[in-house]
Amino acid sequence: MIKTDILIIGAGPTGLFTVFEAGLLKLKTHLIDALPQPGGQCSEIYPKKPIYDIPAYPEILAGDLVDKLMEQIKPFEPGFTFGERAESLEKQEDGSFIVTTNKGTQHHAPVVVIAGGLGSFEPRKPLIPNIADYEDKGVSYIIKDPEIYRNKKVVIAGGGDSALDWAIYLADVASEVSLVHRRNEFRGALDSVEKASELAKLGKIKLFTEAQVTELHGENDLSGVVIAYNDKEKDNQYLEVDNFIPLFGLSPKLGPIGNWGLEIEKNAIRVNNAKDYQTNIPGVFAIGDVNTYEGKLKLILSGFHEAAVMCQYAYKIINPDKRFVMKYTTVGGVEGFDGTKKEAKKEVVQSIV
Amino acid sequence: MIKTDILIIGAGPTGLFTVFEAGLLKLKTHLIDALPQPGGQCSEIYPKKPIYDIPAYPEILAGDLVDKLMEQIKPFEPGFTFGERAESLEKQEDGSFIVTTNKGTQHHAPVVVIAGGLGSFEPRKPLIPNIADYEDKGVSYIIKDPEIYRNKKVVIAGGGDSALDWAIYLADVASEVSLVHRRNEFRGALDSVEKASELAKLGKIKLFTEAQVTELHGENDLSGVVIAYNDKEKDNQYLEVDNFIPLFGLSPKLGPIGNWGLEIEKNAIRVNNAKDYQTNIPGVFAIGDVNTYEGKLKLILSGFHEAAVMCQYAYKIINPDKRFVMKYTTVGGVEGFDGTKKEAKKEVVQSIV
Repeated sequence: MIKTDILIIGAGPTGLFTVFEAGLLKLKTHLIDALPQPGGQCSEIYPKKPIYDIPAYPEILAGDLVDKLMEQIKPFEPGFTFGERAESLEKQEDGSFIVTTNKGTQHHAPVVVIAGGLGSFEPRKPLIPNIADYEDKGVSYIIKDPEIYRNKKVVIAGGGDSALDWAIYLADVASEVSLVHRRNEFRGALDSVEKASELAKLGKIKLFTEAQVTELHGENDLSGVVIAYNDKEKDNQYLEVDNFIPLFGLSPKLGPIGNWGLEIEKNAIRVNNAKDYQTNIPGVFAIGDVNTYEGKLKLILSGFHEAAVMCQYAYKIINPDKRFVMKYTTVGGVEGFDGTKKEAKKEVVQSIV
Repeated sequence: MIKTDILIIGAGPTGLFTVFEAGLLKLKTHLIDALPQPGGQCSEIYPKKPIYDIPAYPEILAGDLVDKLMEQIKPFEPGFTFGERAESLEKQEDGSFIVTTNKGTQHHAPVVVIAGGLGSFEPRKPLIPNIADYEDKGVSYIIKDPEIYRNKKVVIAGGGDSALDWAIYLADVASEVSLVHRRNEFRGALDSVEKASELAKLGKIKLFTEAQVTELHGENDLSGVVIAYNDKEKDNQYLEVDNFIPLFGLSPKLGPIGNWGLEIEKNAIRVNNAKDYQTNIPGVFAIGDVNTYEGKLKLILSGFHEAAVMCQYAYKIINPDKRFVMKYTTVGGVEGFDGTKKEAKKEVVQSIV
């Protein structure tokens, strides 16, 4: 059982900054995220995209924003449960909570804060009737370790950056790479489109455009797919393959959190912004893009502010008898749990003659 | 008459970031500040002090924070009225406002936002009965242009960084520099204390410690001061001088804004945070350290968030018939009023064979 002061669900920018604000109040934190790394969407979907509206950053790449936040929170030594999705929330008799993931990992904390962004990102799946039968038996929707495709025959479906980039990458790894796309045009970074084009001309990527995978075959594991053209005059093609990887993007889903008894409004969690961003379950807060209230702006900046406010109230729940006096970091510095201390140079007081 | 969409009172970090959020909504801004430069306290009081709690900046000097904000808002071409204090607010028949400064400059806007921090910083004055008679006639509390002291006899009073630094600077400019301090110990950066000590030993700064200026003399302009020692056994000294500059620090005062009919609570302006940070006067908002509401945190971060929220409501006041759909800067980029456009590299859509 992992124990902490504030359990943070979601390790996007808002969840990460919560570690810092909690740390200033001497509260320990642990984060759960379904993705394999910190940063949420910023790392997973658009790490190379510039963001222009973070205060005092005229321009910063989403991935760099995550790196800066990780550096800022390092002194507060957060714990992480990555690659697992928070599945259930159980209130204990003493008012604390146990949160269990889909892999059974249990977390215990007096305060839970949901910083879940738009939800956990689920892959969009193609509508092939028996596709679920082959999941993890040749079919996967995310590439975690490209090495498992070494010397395999792989079919990738999709027309965006992800499909292009993995087709290019696997051209050197797999024994055969086919790329199937419904349209004739691909949408991606200029580099990727040009590189894929080159590899297609060299025959290192077999291209099927204006076509889709419509059937999956195999005794137990996947062994072949049927490719059908949009143009019905053209004959379907049967391809012997080891792996089928549809890369149609990720779609956010609130997921199991939707069943925790929280007040849900338009796929977001209703909070009382007049005060503390607490949900209808006392001790459970929601901050960042996952919450809603009158005038809510879905800005990273707003998530940061909500984290700062929410931590003040979490402190009162965790330390009901202590009075906390906030010290500015310009005055008090930052004292890490790792023994580090950052502070402004002290003035000297001395006689000058 | 200066005309704008949102008139911002106070050019500290919160006021500056308001320019950016307004600009994203195509609203023009103009700022008034009593100080001679942007940045508020960050520039005037502690430009070299590190701040640790700006999200994604593990450490940033206050002065650098201001520079980054100035760079970020540059495309939105804000106007500035510096060195003047907003004195009066007059509501017009059409609901707009005219704000006049202490120097008579008039500003007209449909929306006014007070981002006044702790108020305008007023110098702390020594308790010498006739000191007001000599203001601008030899007595000043801030050094705006050190050149006016060239070849003059100057007395500085105070024991902090400001008194030390100006005594050091003027040692090369004035014909005579005296430094008077109540105590024997000075409080300042190590460099400044050492440098002043060296100049005192060389006789380039005349030092009077455990002493104060108690009398001012002169027909019309200041011509002499009396210095009295704490030790009453010691004789008072009369010094012929051209200038007396007490540098006892700045003290924040809400000032004339306190008389504008706003709901004031503990030297701050009460707003309704549940919604839009609007004050009891519709069309007048208050954001940053100058406002108060339940759970208010006086963080620069919170001022930034309040600016973003407030601008959305200002938009509705200024454009009652338009519906605004917020676009993320990651998607829509940033289009400056100066013709500049920043945006993420576009994806290409093309066939790859």
